[in-house]
Amino acid sequence: MRIALDTILFPVSMSLFANNRKRLCDKLKAKKVPENSIVLLQGGQQTQQDSTDRDITFRQESYFQWCFGVTEPDCFGTIEVASGKAVLFIPKLPKEYQVWMGEIYPPSHFQAKYAVDDVKFVQDVISQISEELKRINAGVLLTLNGLNTDSGHTTREAAFDGISSFTVNNELLHPVISECRVIKTEQELQVMRYVNRVSSDAHKELMRRIRPGWMEYQAESLFKHHVYTHGGCRHVAYTCIGATGDHCAILHYGHAGAPNDRLIADGDMCLFDMGGEYYCYASDITCSYPVNGKFTDDQKAIYNAVLKSNRAVQKALKPGVSWVDMHLLADRVQLEELVKIGILHGDVDEMMAVRLGAVFMPHGLGHFMGHDVHDVGGYPVDGPERRTEPGLRSLRTARTMEEGMVLTIEPGIYFNWPMIEQALNNPEMSRFINADVIQRFRNFGGVRIEDDVAVTSDGMEMLTCVPRDVDEIERLMAEGRANDNPVLRGNLLPIVKA
Amino acid sequence: MRIALDTILFPVSMSLFANNRKRLCDKLKAKKVPENSIVLLQGGQQTQQDSTDRDITFRQESYFQWCFGVTEPDCFGTIEVASGKAVLFIPKLPKEYQVWMGEIYPPSHFQAKYAVDDVKFVQDVISQISEELKRINAGVLLTLNGLNTDSGHTTREAAFDGISSFTVNNELLHPVISECRVIKTEQELQVMRYVNRVSSDAHKELMRRIRPGWMEYQAESLFKHHVYTHGGCRHVAYTCIGATGDHCAILHYGHAGAPNDRLIADGDMCLFDMGGEYYCYASDITCSYPVNGKFTDDQKAIYNAVLKSNRAVQKALKPGVSWVDMHLLADRVQLEELVKIGILHGDVDEMMAVRLGAVFMPHGLGHFMGHDVHDVGGYPVDGPERRTEPGLRSLRTARTMEEGMVLTIEPGIYFNWPMIEQALNNPEMSRFINADVIQRFRNFGGVRIEDDVAVTSDGMEMLTCVPRDVDEIERLMAEGRANDNPVLRGNLLPIVKA
Repeated sequence: MRIALDTILFPVSMSLFANNRKRLCDKLKAKKVPENSIVLLQGGQQTQQDSTDRDITFRQESYFQWCFGVTEPDCFGTIEVASGKAVLFIPKLPKEYQVWMGEIYPPSHFQAKYAVDDVKFVQDVISQISEELKRINAGVLLTLNGLNTDSGHTTREAAFDGISSFTVNNELLHPVISECRVIKTEQELQVMRYVNRVSSDAHKELMRRIRPGWMEYQAESLFKHHVYTHGGCRHVAYTCIGATGDHCAILHYGHAGAPNDRLIADGDMCLFDMGGEYYCYASDITCSYPVNGKFTDDQKAIYNAVLKSNRAVQKALKPGVSWVDMHLLADRVQLEELVKIGILHGDVDEMMAVRLGAVFMPHGLGHFMGHDVHDVGGYPVDGPERRTEPGLRSLRTARTMEEGMVLTIEPGIYFNWPMIEQALNNPEMSRFINADVIQRFRNFGGVRIEDDVAVTSDGMEMLTCVPRDVDEIERLMAEGRANDNPVLRGNLLPIVKA
Repeated sequence: MRIALDTILFPVSMSLFANNRKRLCDKLKAKKVPENSIVLLQGGQQTQQDSTDRDITFRQESYFQWCFGVTEPDCFGTIEVASGKAVLFIPKLPKEYQVWMGEIYPPSHFQAKYAVDDVKFVQDVISQISEELKRINAGVLLTLNGLNTDSGHTTREAAFDGISSFTVNNELLHPVISECRVIKTEQELQVMRYVNRVSSDAHKELMRRIRPGWMEYQAESLFKHHVYTHGGCRHVAYTCIGATGDHCAILHYGHAGAPNDRLIADGDMCLFDMGGEYYCYASDITCSYPVNGKFTDDQKAIYNAVLKSNRAVQKALKPGVSWVDMHLLADRVQLEELVKIGILHGDVDEMMAVRLGAVFMPHGLGHFMGHDVHDVGGYPVDGPERRTEPGLRSLRTARTMEEGMVLTIEPGIYFNWPMIEQALNNPEMSRFINADVIQRFRNFGGVRIEDDVAVTSDGMEMLTCVPRDVDEIERLMAEGRANDNPVLRGNLLPIVKA
């Protein structure tokens, strides 16, 4: 008796991937690639920790996933551009696999599971591709070779012994498939709504249960447990950022050099940037709130400034607007609010001219999201170029918005003290800063409010569903404290002592 | 205010690693390597998911970890054999690191943190090593190059532009350092006791809370949450095996092709093989029990057969005995018990001669454990060779036991039906099998009882602390059910529906 994950949790239909393949073929045809071409992709490979036999838990390579939705490693796949015929190549497994790894399924099993036209063995990839190419009158293999503009890494082109005997074009495919990935279909949006809901629920559970005296990594642990056990998310979309106190100003906190290992003190702000991943679709949500459940006046002021910025962008977002303009809008609202709070003074236009906003928000307003949390297609060759000004240069896209794009909206205000000091020492900047007031925020850390949204025909759809108003947050956190259950607390609080 | 993990949880003293380095230098001197040699190791590197910018959560490379205990990526380290002088090379970080990743600490910070003699920048590795070599009158760089006998992979030798200008010997180091890693010091044992206790506690919590109707991955999720939140284990030592029902017969269940995605039914056996990792020290524990908390007669019979085998090995284990003999002892006890249960009949010596035991236990009895769950040193060049008989050939070591070795003892009886059918079709085997009786066990799955132990001067020390007797297990599981708390259950049971 085996009940597959997708019948219990959110069912992902294989027609999602068939539809992706069809979109790809249509675009390739429109680009006038040779009609007798075959797209060839290599899936992700099972890897091990250094030289050991310890497997790194496998996660499919995103381009391959987008085309085939295959959860197993070490596959290849082909798509005939003219007909859309899709063939999956799976490894021929040795007999011992059955004892160590599980049932060896025949190709027909994978053909049914992934709804492709045919399934062959990887070991036969050369002869099978040769046969296919002969059938469609020779032609060209289109392989994937292109730059990821966030990582600076290049995609790994499909490779196997004997590929040199084929005519290969590795330039046509990458821009076209990346562009396809930028626009999400309704089926893709359904999965992204699901993973956003699961991750939102985990954030809410964390708000209810977090207490001063926790270690930051306990928040990470609870989040991961919640999205996995309630939502089937084996992976998170990125390393959890479980920042508190002044660590909230560290934008990518949580990595091995700063592994969420601080004891959370009463009065600290939390900045929890965590998102589950479901069937290789990401979510990316940040919630900021005081660990004790009650905002101070300063905390409320900074929080509401960021919220106002977030909401202003949401209101303005629609097809046709430039993402750069959205970033500048967020900046402007935050600067206006910082004036009201008394941290800044002077003319906001002049502040904008010297990019003072980037002192408080050094990162970009948001990014594409899909299979990858920083999704591809941000800077296509024929699109707007990356800006060079502080803040703007960190934007992962500068594009004009289109229906079907999914992005994060994540403004923030941070008191990164070395950055603040730099600004205080720069007369162009310091003339706007009330040096005495800002001292009060020295150990504040920061606030980020990050939602995931989809651009619609006339605006946007909110995918994230967590409380955002100060009152709502305080109410939910109080609810968690009112029902304070010693069993639940006991379940998290004690730290094992040596 | 920053409180380091190790002051809250189990404090790992840097003298542990200093002592490891000393042991290494002593052994190298005893092997008469040139006294003016310097060991050069390269630490693990931060990697990303495919071509994206999504970091794979970093875990240090094990040889480097054993020498330096460093948790950050992208370092090098040198150890002067004659004096033991240890130098750590850390990356020189760009100014932007401070905004995105956190405080940039000076070398003095790392010198204090890791208690090494000096800290330099990786960027200066060539000039610094040249200087060191000059200081000790030229000499040889000893780099790491050798085979991992479990994975078949070769270690990644230290490499940097300009290394070709040094005299490098890549053969001397690997066997010596691997041999050092086989024998654990008291300080290392303390950490391994700790991670075993944390992981044992998580297994016990799972016994209390598991219920029919859970998905297997919910058990995986709870285990990981428990070892992280209560024990500070960000990593587990290997992919959790959350097998139930007939999946218990799949030895390495839980990977991407079989990702713990079965719904657990009342009456199923569970085989949960899960172990946390703390400061890169592994644990590896398997508990087998019925999900509903009450053994049937058949379940009890098979379980007790495996337990008897496990205990027989524990009783016999001491310095001087051969691990192969321990495997054969486990096999013999299990065959004797299978005769008593009525699944087999006939002479056990004759069964041993045809290796019938390997039909029911195809894997090896256990393996070395340390930084790696399958630790190095199993088959040194001058040690006993790998056997070729079924079962024995799966042993990850064939060595004679010595004080300070840490191993798993993990006998098991599995009803892997294709294997059973093969035996039934083999007259040499089938003459011992009661074909009618064994049919009753067709969907049984299997039982594994896995403890972690350290070899002492006259026997062994048990590191694992979970209930093992049927009565103890049933009592603990009943306790979890007696205190059945709707909040706790509600916290795990509901599955999110689309």
